[in-house]
Amino acid sequence: MIASIDPRTGRKVEEVGTTTSASHLDDLCVRATAAAQELVALGRRGRAGLLRSMAAALQERRTDLVAVADRETALGEQRLGGELTRTCYQLELFADVLDDGAYLEATIDHAGDTPMGPRPDLRRMLVPLGPVAVFGASNFPFAFSVPGGDTASALAAGCPVIAKVHGAHPATSVLSHEALVAGAVAAGVTPDVINLVFGREAGVELVKRPAVHAVGFTGSLDVGRLLFDIASSRPSPIPFYGELGALNTLTVCPGAAAERGEDIAAGLTASFTLGVGQFCTKPGVALLPAGPAGEAIRRGLTERVEAMAAGFMLSERTARSYRDGTETLRGLPGVRVLASGAGGGADGWTGAPLLLQADADAVTGALTEECFGPVLVTVDYTSEEHLLELLRGFGPALTGTIHADAADAGFSARVYDQLGASVGRVVWNGFPTGVAVAWGMQHGGPYPATTNALHTSVGTTAIRRWVRPISLQNVPQNLLPDELRDTPADAAGLVRRIDGVLTPVTE
Amino acid sequence: MIASIDPRTGRKVEEVGTTTSASHLDDLCVRATAAAQELVALGRRGRAGLLRSMAAALQERRTDLVAVADRETALGEQRLGGELTRTCYQLELFADVLDDGAYLEATIDHAGDTPMGPRPDLRRMLVPLGPVAVFGASNFPFAFSVPGGDTASALAAGCPVIAKVHGAHPATSVLSHEALVAGAVAAGVTPDVINLVFGREAGVELVKRPAVHAVGFTGSLDVGRLLFDIASSRPSPIPFYGELGALNTLTVCPGAAAERGEDIAAGLTASFTLGVGQFCTKPGVALLPAGPAGEAIRRGLTERVEAMAAGFMLSERTARSYRDGTETLRGLPGVRVLASGAGGGADGWTGAPLLLQADADAVTGALTEECFGPVLVTVDYTSEEHLLELLRGFGPALTGTIHADAADAGFSARVYDQLGASVGRVVWNGFPTGVAVAWGMQHGGPYPATTNALHTSVGTTAIRRWVRPISLQNVPQNLLPDELRDTPADAAGLVRRIDGVLTPVTE
Repeated sequence: MIASIDPRTGRKVEEVGTTTSASHLDDLCVRATAAAQELVALGRRGRAGLLRSMAAALQERRTDLVAVADRETALGEQRLGGELTRTCYQLELFADVLDDGAYLEATIDHAGDTPMGPRPDLRRMLVPLGPVAVFGASNFPFAFSVPGGDTASALAAGCPVIAKVHGAHPATSVLSHEALVAGAVAAGVTPDVINLVFGREAGVELVKRPAVHAVGFTGSLDVGRLLFDIASSRPSPIPFYGELGALNTLTVCPGAAAERGEDIAAGLTASFTLGVGQFCTKPGVALLPAGPAGEAIRRGLTERVEAMAAGFMLSERTARSYRDGTETLRGLPGVRVLASGAGGGADGWTGAPLLLQADADAVTGALTEECFGPVLVTVDYTSEEHLLELLRGFGPALTGTIHADAADAGFSARVYDQLGASVGRVVWNGFPTGVAVAWGMQHGGPYPATTNALHTSVGTTAIRRWVRPISLQNVPQNLLPDELRDTPADAAGLVRRIDGVLTPVTE
Repeated sequence: MIASIDPRTGRKVEEVGTTTSASHLDDLCVRATAAAQELVALGRRGRAGLLRSMAAALQERRTDLVAVADRETALGEQRLGGELTRTCYQLELFADVLDDGAYLEATIDHAGDTPMGPRPDLRRMLVPLGPVAVFGASNFPFAFSVPGGDTASALAAGCPVIAKVHGAHPATSVLSHEALVAGAVAAGVTPDVINLVFGREAGVELVKRPAVHAVGFTGSLDVGRLLFDIASSRPSPIPFYGELGALNTLTVCPGAAAERGEDIAAGLTASFTLGVGQFCTKPGVALLPAGPAGEAIRRGLTERVEAMAAGFMLSERTARSYRDGTETLRGLPGVRVLASGAGGGADGWTGAPLLLQADADAVTGALTEECFGPVLVTVDYTSEEHLLELLRGFGPALTGTIHADAADAGFSARVYDQLGASVGRVVWNGFPTGVAVAWGMQHGGPYPATTNALHTSVGTTAIRRWVRPISLQNVPQNLLPDELRDTPADAAGLVRRIDGVLTPVTE
């Protein structure tokens, strides 16, 4: 049985589901394969309806969902309510993506002459890969779990989902799944568009199943790399989209430090301790200018952290990993503790905020790796060159943040250019925690931030992970997908590339 | 030393270059990394100029290039002249892609309120990965080798190329490289945008180098999978785009067989023997309706193949592999030789066309795998269900071809639906050999056709393999790439997605 545990007490509250057997997994694969045909047959409009129906079903169960998730994750009802809103918005936004239709990259090249001789009629668009696996993360029980962005984008693409339930919130997963299934049924669609598996072993088996055509994963580098290696070494390898997290840097340029150090200290403290630091976009290191302005920021951080208290972390494993990770960091040569929040009580799994300072020449090994939880390391830089060298030492990441004012113009431009080469998102005069769901979002980055930097797990283009191109050569009109016909029946507004030119379908 | 050998004699003509040492490879990586910055700084327009200059430089050397390539590949001056034309067109088409700019997927979400609260200003586009490796194929010494589609699309994207020289045409590779370098210099660009390495060991090392960010490969399943596994198991894995080839099926529906069997026999013979069968898109198996109409097609194929003679193959390895492969096929139970072209002379490396027939229940193992060279296997099907089952047995491929007439309407629609799920290109009433360079082309398919079915190695979208998304949050206008500014200086005609809506930049 799978235990649902309350992080505030560390005690098991109930048992949820059982580990999935190999034969049950076989059955789920067969059902997902059948559901794939149904999702294709639904077409864009039908799948948009499915997603909106699922969002409505989640909304209907809001009170229960938030209560169960809070009991399993201790993230608080306010945050979880917001996360559920975001999760519903995500489903609705992918419905908009389907209505828009441009994600199909519909392309028509009419037959004609070319410098190489006659060319046949060629029509290209993106088609779903087939059933996919989704591995949710502990820290977002809705937005990056069973009903989250991977599921929303995969269903939008036309790919049924088999979701591995995260052990830190199984009851939330089951309740979310019930909502998604109710949404599917209300839309007249088979419930097999989304199924669950339980247990680590079933998760590994899932990645190996021939019926599974791609994997979306959000979690740790260790588990992510393990599953990536399995996906890549299959007889028939499949894409593995692992959002693994990394150490995100935040640089304060000298002018910004002098101008608004107090605001930066306040914002930075809030950012690295938000949700008990359990964000993959958490700034893990702050690079401050040596001297009084940087020193003032450090003082501001120190005062704030000293006034804070421990929070409940997501699971025993998370709390232990945070304790071990911070013990390692504290013990490194050249590292000093600046401030530590008050510890938690005897009950539950807690983590206290921690502020460290590291000598610049100590930055190597564990200091360049993510430590999940409310810890921030500050490092002083002494010159522009020194800063750029330090940043190179931290390697690729999901985000890179720069605080700069007018006085920093030349300086900050060089930092910006260098950061852009190694992160998925550059944040200017802001804080990286929190990832907007938008057309323009990129959530990902060069390894180890993700296993596949060409894609995103947040934002509308996340759908691109679940589709592959196909070309149809001289295929008769009646067999073409509607979006590739000369005169589509239901594609007003769709932008296609026709004979090389982007062209909207007009009625 | 690397030997350049004439396939018409099997004798070494000259020695070309030396195997690349590890230290030389290190140096090439450093130079490629520096060149990457220059390619980014050039911008879209600058890179378009570079590609056009390279195309012009290839044209200037046309006579020499074709002569050397013919001497090394025996493909004939006419075919090679056409291939060089295509190669130049490819470079020019990617210049058009750069002028168009839509490949950047430029996206602007202005700051604003959302159901989840305020959202920052977010701007997304695709940026180059950095230096990449290209492994050309033996069978297209221009179009899929040093100056080919992988190189053209990578340079367009802004990624310097280190190309592994194919042992079957080293002199052509060196001459092509000289032309590309001359084109770069004429455009005022560093010659380090393209460099060569020689030798298998250097090729393997190239895939392991941290400076290399992705690999384009066209070649055999064995070598492709080996390099894919290396790319995937690096400490920092990189995308590997392996176009490996597969067994492409051609189905003749009953109505088409009855109506125009003679035309199909003629076209099919030409398609599987074109270029001595050395195409990855070659139809390797023809599925014919049992009965007189299918029998007539088989007779037409038989007569034509008996009248043909052996041709020179690309290399000793290719000829040996064809000989071994066809010996295996001939020896399988349930396989009969229908016709065999006249053998070659004593000199050089030849392969004779071969037509086989296989019993339907013999279709397994080697009969479901690609045999590179001018061999075609015919198989009879007895019903629609039988055909669909046979097709499933052949697995994924680059292409799937259907010949169908009006009488085949329901039948052919089911074949079409099933094929679409497992190939990259469906060809209707045509022949798959030859891949048009176009916006609408997809050249790729589910494994083992390629290692990455989400991408193409031919056509304008091949550029997507070398770019990754980045989001820029609240970044000041002057630091944004021109394409993401509110008022771009040089982007008239560029279509961007602004606040969710595709919007052209107007002057």
